[in-house]
Amino acid sequence: MPDTFLSQFGQTRSDIKARHALLTPESHEWITQPGWSDTAFAFLISPDLGAKFAMALVSCDQAITAPSAAPGIARFVFCTKGALNLSTGDRLGVEGFAFVPPDSDITLSAEAGARFVLFEWRFLPRGDIPEAVCGSVADIKGSALRGDERLTVQKMLPADAAFDFEFNIMSFEPGASLAYVETHFMEHGLLMLDGGGVYRLDTDWYPVTAGDAIWMGPHVPQWFGALGRTPSRYLICKNYNRSPLAPR
Amino acid sequence: MPDTFLSQFGQTRSDIKARHALLTPESHEWITQPGWSDTAFAFLISPDLGAKFAMALVSCDQAITAPSAAPGIARFVFCTKGALNLSTGDRLGVEGFAFVPPDSDITLSAEAGARFVLFEWRFLPRGDIPEAVCGSVADIKGSALRGDERLTVQKMLPADAAFDFEFNIMSFEPGASLAYVETHFMEHGLLMLDGGGVYRLDTDWYPVTAGDAIWMGPHVPQWFGALGRTPSRYLICKNYNRSPLAPR
Amino acid sequence: MPDTFLSQFGQTRSDIKARHALLTPESHEWITQPGWSDTAFAFLISPDLGAKFAMALVSCDQAITAPSAAPGIARFVFCTKGALNLSTGDRLGVEGFAFVPPDSDITLSAEAGARFVLFEWRFLPRGDIPEAVCGSVADIKGSALRGDERLTVQKMLPADAAFDFEFNIMSFEPGASLAYVETHFMEHGLLMLDGGGVYRLDTDWYPVTAGDAIWMGPHVPQWFGALGRTPSRYLICKNYNRSPLAPR
Amino acid sequence: MPDTFLSQFGQTRSDIKARHALLTPESHEWITQPGWSDTAFAFLISPDLGAKFAMALVSCDQAITAPSAAPGIARFVFCTKGALNLSTGDRLGVEGFAFVPPDSDITLSAEAGARFVLFEWRFLPRGDIPEAVCGSVADIKGSALRGDERLTVQKMLPADAAFDFEFNIMSFEPGASLAYVETHFMEHGLLMLDGGGVYRLDTDWYPVTAGDAIWMGPHVPQWFGALGRTPSRYLICKNYNRSPLAPR
Amino acid sequence: MPDTFLSQFGQTRSDIKARHALLTPESHEWITQPGWSDTAFAFLISPDLGAKFAMALVSCDQAITAPSAAPGIARFVFCTKGALNLSTGDRLGVEGFAFVPPDSDITLSAEAGARFVLFEWRFLPRGDIPEAVCGSVADIKGSALRGDERLTVQKMLPADAAFDFEFNIMSFEPGASLAYVETHFMEHGLLMLDGGGVYRLDTDWYPVTAGDAIWMGPHVPQWFGALGRTPSRYLICKNYNRSPLAPR
Amino acid sequence: MPDTFLSQFGQTRSDIKARHALLTPESHEWITQPGWSDTAFAFLISPDLGAKFAMALVSCDQAITAPSAAPGIARFVFCTKGALNLSTGDRLGVEGFAFVPPDSDITLSAEAGARFVLFEWRFLPRGDIPEAVCGSVADIKGSALRGDERLTVQKMLPADAAFDFEFNIMSFEPGASLAYVETHFMEHGLLMLDGGGVYRLDTDWYPVTAGDAIWMGPHVPQWFGALGRTPSRYLICKNYNRSPLAPR
Amino acid sequence: MPDTFLSQFGQTRSDIKARHALLTPESHEWITQPGWSDTAFAFLISPDLGAKFAMALVSCDQAITAPSAAPGIARFVFCTKGALNLSTGDRLGVEGFAFVPPDSDITLSAEAGARFVLFEWRFLPRGDIPEAVCGSVADIKGSALRGDERLTVQKMLPADAAFDFEFNIMSFEPGASLAYVETHFMEHGLLMLDGGGVYRLDTDWYPVTAGDAIWMGPHVPQWFGALGRTPSRYLICKNYNRSPLAPR
Amino acid sequence: MPDTFLSQFGQTRSDIKARHALLTPESHEWITQPGWSDTAFAFLISPDLGAKFAMALVSCDQAITAPSAAPGIARFVFCTKGALNLSTGDRLGVEGFAFVPPDSDITLSAEAGARFVLFEWRFLPRGDIPEAVCGSVADIKGSALRGDERLTVQKMLPADAAFDFEFNIMSFEPGASLAYVETHFMEHGLLMLDGGGVYRLDTDWYPVTAGDAIWMGPHVPQWFGALGRTPSRYLICKNYNRSPLAPR
Repeated sequence: MPDTFLSQFGQTRSDIKARHALLTPESHEWITQPGWSDTAFAFLISPDLGAKFAMALVSCDQAITAPSAAPGIARFVFCTKGALNLSTGDRLGVEGFAFVPPDSDITLSAEAGARFVLFEWRFLPRGDIPEAVCGSVADIKGSALRGDERLTVQKMLPADAAFDFEFNIMSFEPGASLAYVETHFMEHGLLMLDGGGVYRLDTDWYPVTAGDAIWMGPHVPQWFGALGRTPSRYLICKNYNRSPLAPR
Repeated sequence: MPDTFLSQFGQTRSDIKARHALLTPESHEWITQPGWSDTAFAFLISPDLGAKFAMALVSCDQAITAPSAAPGIARFVFCTKGALNLSTGDRLGVEGFAFVPPDSDITLSAEAGARFVLFEWRFLPRGDIPEAVCGSVADIKGSALRGDERLTVQKMLPADAAFDFEFNIMSFEPGASLAYVETHFMEHGLLMLDGGGVYRLDTDWYPVTAGDAIWMGPHVPQWFGALGRTPSRYLICKNYNRSPLAPR
Repeated sequence: MPDTFLSQFGQTRSDIKARHALLTPESHEWITQPGWSDTAFAFLISPDLGAKFAMALVSCDQAITAPSAAPGIARFVFCTKGALNLSTGDRLGVEGFAFVPPDSDITLSAEAGARFVLFEWRFLPRGDIPEAVCGSVADIKGSALRGDERLTVQKMLPADAAFDFEFNIMSFEPGASLAYVETHFMEHGLLMLDGGGVYRLDTDWYPVTAGDAIWMGPHVPQWFGALGRTPSRYLICKNYNRSPLAPR
Repeated sequence: MPDTFLSQFGQTRSDIKARHALLTPESHEWITQPGWSDTAFAFLISPDLGAKFAMALVSCDQAITAPSAAPGIARFVFCTKGALNLSTGDRLGVEGFAFVPPDSDITLSAEAGARFVLFEWRFLPRGDIPEAVCGSVADIKGSALRGDERLTVQKMLPADAAFDFEFNIMSFEPGASLAYVETHFMEHGLLMLDGGGVYRLDTDWYPVTAGDAIWMGPHVPQWFGALGRTPSRYLICKNYNRSPLAPR
Repeated sequence: MPDTFLSQFGQTRSDIKARHALLTPESHEWITQPGWSDTAFAFLISPDLGAKFAMALVSCDQAITAPSAAPGIARFVFCTKGALNLSTGDRLGVEGFAFVPPDSDITLSAEAGARFVLFEWRFLPRGDIPEAVCGSVADIKGSALRGDERLTVQKMLPADAAFDFEFNIMSFEPGASLAYVETHFMEHGLLMLDGGGVYRLDTDWYPVTAGDAIWMGPHVPQWFGALGRTPSRYLICKNYNRSPLAPR
Repeated sequence: MPDTFLSQFGQTRSDIKARHALLTPESHEWITQPGWSDTAFAFLISPDLGAKFAMALVSCDQAITAPSAAPGIARFVFCTKGALNLSTGDRLGVEGFAFVPPDSDITLSAEAGARFVLFEWRFLPRGDIPEAVCGSVADIKGSALRGDERLTVQKMLPADAAFDFEFNIMSFEPGASLAYVETHFMEHGLLMLDGGGVYRLDTDWYPVTAGDAIWMGPHVPQWFGALGRTPSRYLICKNYNRSPLAPR
Repeated sequence: MPDTFLSQFGQTRSDIKARHALLTPESHEWITQPGWSDTAFAFLISPDLGAKFAMALVSCDQAITAPSAAPGIARFVFCTKGALNLSTGDRLGVEGFAFVPPDSDITLSAEAGARFVLFEWRFLPRGDIPEAVCGSVADIKGSALRGDERLTVQKMLPADAAFDFEFNIMSFEPGASLAYVETHFMEHGLLMLDGGGVYRLDTDWYPVTAGDAIWMGPHVPQWFGALGRTPSRYLICKNYNRSPLAPR
Repeated sequence: MPDTFLSQFGQTRSDIKARHALLTPESHEWITQPGWSDTAFAFLISPDLGAKFAMALVSCDQAITAPSAAPGIARFVFCTKGALNLSTGDRLGVEGFAFVPPDSDITLSAEAGARFVLFEWRFLPRGDIPEAVCGSVADIKGSALRGDERLTVQKMLPADAAFDFEFNIMSFEPGASLAYVETHFMEHGLLMLDGGGVYRLDTDWYPVTAGDAIWMGPHVPQWFGALGRTPSRYLICKNYNRSPLAPR
């Protein structure tokens, strides 16, 4: 019986709490957005959830050109299928990514059949606004997190204090886990790419696997342990380089 | 013993949670509103509940003429008993409805004995503000939801991106249900018109029937299964055609 | 053993929830306020609790003259011991009360040994701001609530749409109760004056007695049943005469 | 086995609730802050938690000079290891402290190896903004709280209504406790310095010891009982000298 | 809409807990019993619930003669409609009752249309087994409970230590309540006959009315407050005259 | 991804409560039993769960002959795949069934590849012990439950008071439900055969589908609503024809 | 207002859980017992609660002679007011105690106005049954528990393996606590005699004071911290000198 | 600060639930047992917890000879420190083990300084009672569980249907986990020997490490995922080779 058979009787693994959320594929609601033609969005995280950013899965059956972001809004895209193109000439294949600063005249387009993850947020400028950034996960060197060679982090954006968000790929060998239950004022949006394990969020424990998304609100206790025969990987964003007293 | 006998001892089916609410008739509080004469309101949903709109049952023993909405506020009315009239000359009988754009000079009046559902919200304009719309549910063609002929949706407002809210009638054959537990950033206000069944909201499950109202806040997991011998129908609104980063 | 003996070991009946609060005497914290000399305040309700108003017990060992309220802030005082005086020449004995409109030059003073309840809130003007009002509960005629002669309401302020708050005395014969579990968008602040019984707030049930205070937030389901040998009475405020879409 | 061994398997004593939080050392996340070189911060409390202030542990391996606070932001520092220096020439050793008013040109620097607690908040001025204050806990005379000689409070800032926050050291003999479960609209940030016992926050009870931090939000019921063979001491801040209707 | 309309969608007021149960009419299951012809039983309480006795509503459309109780089993019947007859010649009209000792040759019969409450339990003999007892509530003198004239108890069985159960009628004036929350090792079975109010059982609070049944297991905290315009009455049994170390 | 992929990370729909249990296929533990060769058992319900009977799924890769039941133990078998044979010469194909009384010399054998449901319980004799019964669901006439033609019950055992358990097939048209939330002292073991919907057990609501098993303990509130496009069917047993005071 | 005023509105501190109970004075139910004349009992703990013993407060307005315990039942009495006498000639004043072995012909009598604590349990003999024991707490030498001089234990019964229960007085200096949260298969019955503090039972935390009684069932996690200005003392029993596989 | 410092303030990781328990070292209560000299026991699991067996940690400072088990009681010992000797001449070093059948005349002795795990249970004979068994974990060949080479099981007792309990060592590579959440009628007692990870029991999730013990009652959902850098191992018993209808 397919995974989603029980959905019609009210079953879901999605769970929405005050400071965190687990969002699983069988409960995704695909909608349209003003200004985007032929494009379906599943907004998994939004300011209405309590987040400081929006995160959507985007699916383009047809080739499309995206409208500009609203004034002051920055974008990060991460391609999961097919390819995206920027008006700069950059082409993003699978696991290609791009940061588009706010109020930029760079145009994003998607080839037919493309799927990508879209992050949008109100950019918090401190000095000069950074330039656009493009790249591919495959080209990014990983480093061990806190010296643990079983946990690798790949940072997609430069370590430049002008950026107000990080976008990283985290990879865990089976049996590896975060070294402790973190609590901090920064938020995260996360998409599991490979593998799975157990995520602790606040006092809830969730079995998770590829395709699951998570919102971690400010200060929520958070921890992941990777299980299974193969490494686990996830895409994760963090609002960063900011004072906790910064305007919100 | 009448349904409401236990109310005097503190019984209610109403349940108010952080992201959703069930509001049942035995707990309705009928009040007056400034500027409305001879009119009783039961405000079931309001911004104080966390909603982006207000939804009231309105009862007019006498014929009345409604005051204009406050500046920037749009209205939708749905007649459940008697009749309403617009200064445009339109008359709304039972299951007649009207959208009145914000800052309009159209006047709404109610005949003696009329009852209607009133929605008010701060309109979110994108380009031209749409014109007023009038109609009757009986005249609206339904379409199958996601291809399931057991679920019919009748859209009372045109599919025009200038509108920021949808108002629909959903009809379920007995045994039909939503195909999955939806979670999305849009909100809903709902009034059961016929039939009944089980509503799942977040991790709560509620038996519901005609007369019950529901608020579904942003991202709350939501699902309905229709039971009984006859079809179930509900009136439902959704804030729509908007980005999750739109001002609130 | 005195009622408060267990307080030193961490016992309290006070209970603070998201949409309501019970505040019992053994947990009152008496503080000072800028501009008030020789005056002790127990702020039981405040905007930090989620309320649209502040409610305090005030105790004056010495005769004092109160500073003016901040700009735009209205006041209601209810004397529970000794006497208060207004610069208008009105004197409020026990169960005397006064409404002082915002930005008024009327001065309030308290005689030595006076105790009173102080409400302050940002006044929501609709047209002319009403004049100050003084009176005594003993002089106010009661009326039966919803025709039930066992429940009497005494309205301390005139039925004038210019007022944005009501202040009432509710009296219940033993065995009387609210006719149903109310839910509405208006808030309440309540102080039990006499008697006692059971208060249902949301899904909590509280035994209450004279001296207990309650905050009922918007839409919280609420009900009271009066028990004991003698009538129960409480002082209650309600924000009123306002649209649920009014600015907050 | 060291205290933190189970952290890697998802164990923590930290607990984040709507109106309070316990933050224990094994879950501290050490980050950097824009403008601070060679300095690690563990922000335990922040506005994102619901607080009106930020509280951080700060660790400087190298000697550093701190950037100025943002406009309108006041600071309080409390040295727990090594020493801090102000441009006024004051030097703060262990348990030395300083208040730096907003928009001050006083510069703070830390000697290599220093650790301190940093509080920052948007100052709420009423009249003249107070001058900077420096001192050492050892020089502050304690007074018995509510006449109980087992509980001593040392007030680090002068009793001057111009201050909008208090910073105190509370000391408890073993067996001493707060006299009742307090509830009030003021908030607290707390760091246990010595000893331990049981903290009641809302309806939760926490064993606590030196190194644990607590946020107490507005109105949260709160109580501490000191146990063990030696006195317990904590550093605690309170927003103070303000009306509950003050802007936030 | 009739009270039970929502039952078909899964609604019930019945609530079964480890040490107590509320059993409301819409969830009664009417069954047959071996040896009884033409008789319907709703067993509300049984040893499978944890009780030391069984309590059933019994309905006889036809005139029937009941089979004897099983060996060692005592019976108490309370007529609520029509009439019952004993082979002793006693006739029980409405609110007539009878105790039949274990292993008795007294036969019970019911007239067509009779309804009655049946209690059965394994009798715990101490010395001589008492004789059968018949009577009518109307003939029993009440006495004030603990001297409170608002609470009357009518004891249907004699104050003879040979009995191991009590069967009483309790009457409450509106506003009367049990003087405290009782906890004891004896159990109760209860049927509300008139009126209503609030029953506290353990930490649950239930609005109750005529027709509701309650099981109170050993030691469960229990309290009732009577509300409404008319007196409340209930039938209640208690296992009694026994040591807590008696065989069970 | 297959339904059971998340099981390895700790996911299950199975839920074990004090008075009921849901047992879903991904958590079945297949074991052996003394005396049975080449046979795998998944015991879903047992006296250790609190039940008065055991219910197992049984799978025979090879042809086997079952050992006799223990003394005093009755059996009911229901074939779900392949075929079973009795020493009486009866052959049970799919949805064939047999009751074997306690202490019988009838032998049960299974053909290779057979799967069946096995019930075992301590028989409660009242007079003569009934003979063995064989049959097939297809040959059993259904009757409408409580006159509702959408709910059909097929009783596999005769309506003879000598039997102490019932075994029935319940069929629900889509949209049909039990007429109310039942509570009674009898227990149930249930296996969903077709379709699905929502099962309420106590205060829990479970989406269920074919393959799910349920234990309903004594007095547990219970209700089912059938959803989907096709009828739902389940196999259900009930201990019956017994007094609640019968020995257990 | 007296401590028990709120009891009439349903307030109690008593709390009954599956493995522990707190029993506070305002909920005591005073009953009679067969064979005891003029004697009131409050049975706080009994086998019906899950305990292996019964514990009662006993109050004798008149001089009485107690009936013998039932066969096989041992008794321990602890005098809290007035005096008790044994037929051996021993007289127990306040804090006098006696152990009476099962099936003894020693008679217990109480002087008018006496109050005492009565424990009864089915004695578990291992070899010779011990003789009766009498004494007074004042005569018993205390020893430090686990070497902590702040915690003193006085053992009222000899350290003889023939006894199956211990009865001890535990004394705590303010600030002293049990060294850890104990969990073991033995049970306790406890009566606070002096002082107070916080008792942790399972995951519940209770402020407790003199007069409170506690049942700790097998394996329940348990801990006490003593607070206040004066030492805390409690009377505590433990079933002891037995294997966990001993018959129950 | 040592791991157990907070224990004196009421902290423990032990958690006792209706169908499972986690028992962590800081809450162990060391007691004596009748007939054993100079021996300390920490009984972590017992029939009073709901288990069908007892499991203790045993510590012998001196050389001792154990008394025989009670009639009908079988024993299993597992040496964790020092050495044990049987009267058969077998010597058990670290990770040596022995099964002693009920009513055996084999004597067990412990060398000074020995520590071991002791299991005792009422043996359930089916045919001949098996002989004693001795061995060492190091000599037992492991086999992959369900074909997963990352999970190894070493069975310490022969695969002989006469045994009614299994005693196994389970070893998990980091990242390995049980393949699904098991639920079955058999119980387990478990002691973590090495490593750690996350144990799900019912709906609770526990970080566990070496030294932790677990009781899993009948049917409790159970799952383990191994984390960390090194393999995890645990000792586990299971009652086995028995029908769910077997006498208990």
